Amino acid sequence: MLIIAERINATRRRIGRAIEERDAGLLEREVRIQAEAGADFIDVNAASDPAREIDDLRWAVEVVQRSTDLPLCLDSSDPEALRAGLELIEGDVVMLNSVTGEPDKMQQVIPLAAESGARLVALTMDGRGLPDTAERRVDIAAKLIEAAQSAGIERGRLFVDPCIQPISTSVEQALAVLSAVFRIMQAFPGAHTTCGLSNISFGLPNRPLINRTYLGCLIAAGLDSAILDPTAGEVMDVVRAAEALAGRDDFCMNYIRAMRERL
Amino acid sequence: MLIIAERINATRRRIGRAIEERDAGLLEREVRIQAEAGADFIDVNAASDPAREIDDLRWAVEVVQRSTDLPLCLDSSDPEALRAGLELIEGDVVMLNSVTGEPDKMQQVIPLAAESGARLVALTMDGRGLPDTAERRVDIAAKLIEAAQSAGIERGRLFVDPCIQPISTSVEQALAVLSAVFRIMQAFPGAHTTCGLSNISFGLPNRPLINRTYLGCLIAAGLDSAILDPTAGEVMDVVRAAEALAGRDDFCMNYIRAMRERL
Repeated sequence: MLIIAERINATRRRIGRAIEERDAGLLEREVRIQAEAGADFIDVNAASDPAREIDDLRWAVEVVQRSTDLPLCLDSSDPEALRAGLELIEGDVVMLNSVTGEPDKMQQVIPLAAESGARLVALTMDGRGLPDTAERRVDIAAKLIEAAQSAGIERGRLFVDPCIQPISTSVEQALAVLSAVFRIMQAFPGAHTTCGLSNISFGLPNRPLINRTYLGCLIAAGLDSAILDPTAGEVMDVVRAAEALAGRDDFCMNYIRAMRERL
Repeated sequence: MLIIAERINATRRRIGRAIEERDAGLLEREVRIQAEAGADFIDVNAASDPAREIDDLRWAVEVVQRSTDLPLCLDSSDPEALRAGLELIEGDVVMLNSVTGEPDKMQQVIPLAAESGARLVALTMDGRGLPDTAERRVDIAAKLIEAAQSAGIERGRLFVDPCIQPISTSVEQALAVLSAVFRIMQAFPGAHTTCGLSNISFGLPNRPLINRTYLGCLIAAGLDSAILDPTAGEVMDVVRAAEALAGRDDFCMNYIRAMRERL
């Protein structure tokens, strides 16, 4: 399970202010606690103000990069911001978050990933509104995977995100996304699936409970990556438990080790 | 979600001793805490010693029945014990746990349920070893449902139990049971599914974490009943969260109410 740690996101007020005020110490602390909690990638989103995003992202990338050996996940809907962030990356592992099935996004972002060797989060949306069935998500995933492969990006670098929607507004969407994850993992061996987990609980009380309960279901359905806050309550325990349940932890050794380390 | 509360089971040492010593107060307390935690049925198992089981079960049934308005679930692999327990039941709702697909068990237990109007837990095992695939579980379920219907037991009284096995011994069985639950709920509309949840975590540390993580997955797959300890940590919170995720809680109202009641 590949964990993309989401806390450094400028749409969160505390992080947005820290980026605006160039408070490197706060970002370094956010990197450290997420790394200690089990992050594999550190997501960096600096999109609080489109007019400043490229400058802010450059600053944040430099701060985060010098404070950790973990690879970064550059997070922007603006292909130019992704390009600007990529120019600063020093290691050979990086992720771009994200491309969508919209033609202009595919044309701009897929070449960035192809040229840089970056891993790529691919959202199953295509400009005709959010997908509302498993079928549409699988169809858009197929289009994205084909376009990426045509550009030389192998499936193993693709992380298909089936666009979780809040159950508070559309009660049948959680099962639709579970079904999409299952079908995408069956239909496109080698490709990964990921998701912005916390979207599921928007507007509800005790969001961590909904988030981690759903994460267990998603992992059982085949999900092998998630964009989440690894410091949130019990979520990493659920990752270990669900991987054992999904048959991805021989003799449950990782689970047993994780539980022993906590005691 | 129908919760069959499992704590009154004589194979647990404390309960076995209380039954042997005719300690009614301890059983009454077990009933009360399970009722308060959200039980719908109180399981009563008195099978610590086959030579005493029928006497022990009669005593336990009388104690439990006079201490709660909740219906009982009579739990024995011995059809004669089930018959003896049934004779003492005063209300018109009761569950029998369980029948299997073994011919002699079907011949003895199905008539008991048919005549008494009892709900019936039907284990998908048939004497040829524990089922190891989803297919075998579905096949045995079909046989049990057909036999029950021939005897006049409608599907709504049947609770098919696909026989959870510990992931510590067979790492692929958790997904096989999830698949079986999904297929049984699709193939036999009206029938219920249930499971002895805690079997999944036998031999592992932090069993409640494995149990509740798996329960969320099972509910998303369609499970609508479970045999579990409703007082165990966060398990009933996971039931509420998973029912919302499975689209069985309009506008998430039950979830929101449950979270507010806790605060």
